[in-house]
Amino acid sequence: MVAKLPEEEHPKAAFGWAARDQSGVLSPFKFSRRATGEKDVSFKVLYCGMCHSDLHMVKNEWANSIYPLVPGHEIVGVVTEVGSKVEKFKVGDKVGVGCLVGSCHSCDNCTNNLENYCPQLILTYGAKYYDGTITYGGYSDTMVADEHFIVRIPDNMPLDATAPLLCAGITVYSPLKYYGLDKPGTHVGVVGLGGLGHMAVKFAKAMGAKVTVISTSPNKKQQAIECLGADSFLVSHDQDQMKVAMGTMDGIIDTVSAMHPFVPLLGLLKSHGKLILVGAPEKPLELPAFSLLMGRKMVGGSCIGGMKETQEMIDFAAKHSIKSDIEVIPLEYVNTAMERMLKADVRYRFVIDIGNTVNSSH
Amino acid sequence: MVAKLPEEEHPKAAFGWAARDQSGVLSPFKFSRRATGEKDVSFKVLYCGMCHSDLHMVKNEWANSIYPLVPGHEIVGVVTEVGSKVEKFKVGDKVGVGCLVGSCHSCDNCTNNLENYCPQLILTYGAKYYDGTITYGGYSDTMVADEHFIVRIPDNMPLDATAPLLCAGITVYSPLKYYGLDKPGTHVGVVGLGGLGHMAVKFAKAMGAKVTVISTSPNKKQQAIECLGADSFLVSHDQDQMKVAMGTMDGIIDTVSAMHPFVPLLGLLKSHGKLILVGAPEKPLELPAFSLLMGRKMVGGSCIGGMKETQEMIDFAAKHSIKSDIEVIPLEYVNTAMERMLKADVRYRFVIDIGNTVNSSH
Repeated sequence: MVAKLPEEEHPKAAFGWAARDQSGVLSPFKFSRRATGEKDVSFKVLYCGMCHSDLHMVKNEWANSIYPLVPGHEIVGVVTEVGSKVEKFKVGDKVGVGCLVGSCHSCDNCTNNLENYCPQLILTYGAKYYDGTITYGGYSDTMVADEHFIVRIPDNMPLDATAPLLCAGITVYSPLKYYGLDKPGTHVGVVGLGGLGHMAVKFAKAMGAKVTVISTSPNKKQQAIECLGADSFLVSHDQDQMKVAMGTMDGIIDTVSAMHPFVPLLGLLKSHGKLILVGAPEKPLELPAFSLLMGRKMVGGSCIGGMKETQEMIDFAAKHSIKSDIEVIPLEYVNTAMERMLKADVRYRFVIDIGNTVNSSH
Repeated sequence: MVAKLPEEEHPKAAFGWAARDQSGVLSPFKFSRRATGEKDVSFKVLYCGMCHSDLHMVKNEWANSIYPLVPGHEIVGVVTEVGSKVEKFKVGDKVGVGCLVGSCHSCDNCTNNLENYCPQLILTYGAKYYDGTITYGGYSDTMVADEHFIVRIPDNMPLDATAPLLCAGITVYSPLKYYGLDKPGTHVGVVGLGGLGHMAVKFAKAMGAKVTVISTSPNKKQQAIECLGADSFLVSHDQDQMKVAMGTMDGIIDTVSAMHPFVPLLGLLKSHGKLILVGAPEKPLELPAFSLLMGRKMVGGSCIGGMKETQEMIDFAAKHSIKSDIEVIPLEYVNTAMERMLKADVRYRFVIDIGNTVNSSH
């Protein structure tokens, strides 16, 4: 049996930008989307955020990429068609899709609204869907997904600056809640001020926490405090600053995926404090057991969030006027944007204006 | 000013066995105890458990030992005198002292009954007491401590087999409670079957958990299941056994202080599972961040327990007839016992019969 071409796999023509190999260079790509199934919502993609993991995936740095690969899992747009059994959405609704488009719906995690930890989770791009075809992401003109994996974007939210909430936002919101760092008066540290970190500052502040940004870059201090509302700022290699701050934090959200020392971060925690990793450095962390035993500290991980919590996060953001700080770019700029993202040259998230630039990008 | 000799420091003569240098060899030692202060309880020591940390301390392996060093922090006996302001104890009561004899009483930890995490914690031996003198432990004939740090031993508890609860018991009881592993139906793994591990099995079983022992020694299986009541047993280097058990445990209490691999233990955890360290390997743990992110797992530490919880643990043990499995030895046997402990040649705790052997050990 000869595999069908991406263009011919499904009945509906689609267009996006895809990486063809691990050079990671993206270029125009014709493919197809499935017809709107009875539980499906189809939508016209208007904006798609660019996540750091897109960069890893186009270059096959996690050794699981399938080419051609259309990245993008911070996807927002307007509903164009709904299946006969769709209950929550109608044509014209503003909607979004994040990192996942499928799960088993029967495991413990699924039944507890934690589809993101389902062992049979289907990712929004580069994964095998139920029908055996490969999923394509949001660097494309249209999207279709089971309504279970669609979130509603409230009317008062700007679509472009909302897109990054679907990955960067939920990635930091979920651990703030799960690890109990969402209480007023809590002191939360945020390591790294990029796409994830700047959202962590905004969410933690809105939850009532005192927020300290911990960064290697002293020149981010003004931004952190004046623009993002952080209460204080620590330069991680300034030992005097770090020493003064020892034992003051209830929890730390560590968003940095480059290798960095963890022991000084554990030192910043109060007794019973929690260091939460949402980025994944390539090499293993080195953790002295004593630094956990003394003070009953813990190191935990967290990975995006379930669908119920993702909707809750979007609604919380709408209520507190939280949005991502973005740089909007045309689709044909994605390769340059990837290069700039690698250098952390963006405040703080690129969002592709698919709606207005997809036609000129063919 | 010339420092006073240990014999002359305080008004009450005392006798025990002390290490004089980092050879760690213990020998008869005359010293003194303070007069019973108004908040103090003095007691005749009847039994003292031997903890693995005694072995580290007599040899100065943690580089903070002060010689002469009288070890012992699993101390039980009968009250001989109480101070004028003592409220909870009277002469003749059966009491115990664990790892701590002082704390600041004003920090957040102290006010939350977590004296064990107080930064000014005073350890039962080898530490500087409020009056500037050095504390001496329970390998000795008498003990005196502030009543705040004294626990009551219920009448139905055998004193010898209760002694190890004061360190080994609370060290595993506290994390089972704090990390939520005390619920019926929970599946708890216990790594290492020594002084701490065998207590962890008993407490977790009494709390209603399903308990799996994870050990390098296949020959411990029968003991674990038939004598201690564990539900199952895994040989940690048997990859087939470990594979079958992957993703089945809610939490693991890791009691091993020798270096060992942690990634396979994380693999045994369900999503949201917790790996709790109560032993402290010398070298840092190596933890791949991905193994925490995928499944939102955490690694936490725990260190003994506060006074309120220590009393609660003793009362729980009394209610559920939990005691330590011990080998009772005379005081003059301590050096041999130290050597055997180093080889893990004891099931599962040495307890020194101070009351009956101290006079013949001079």
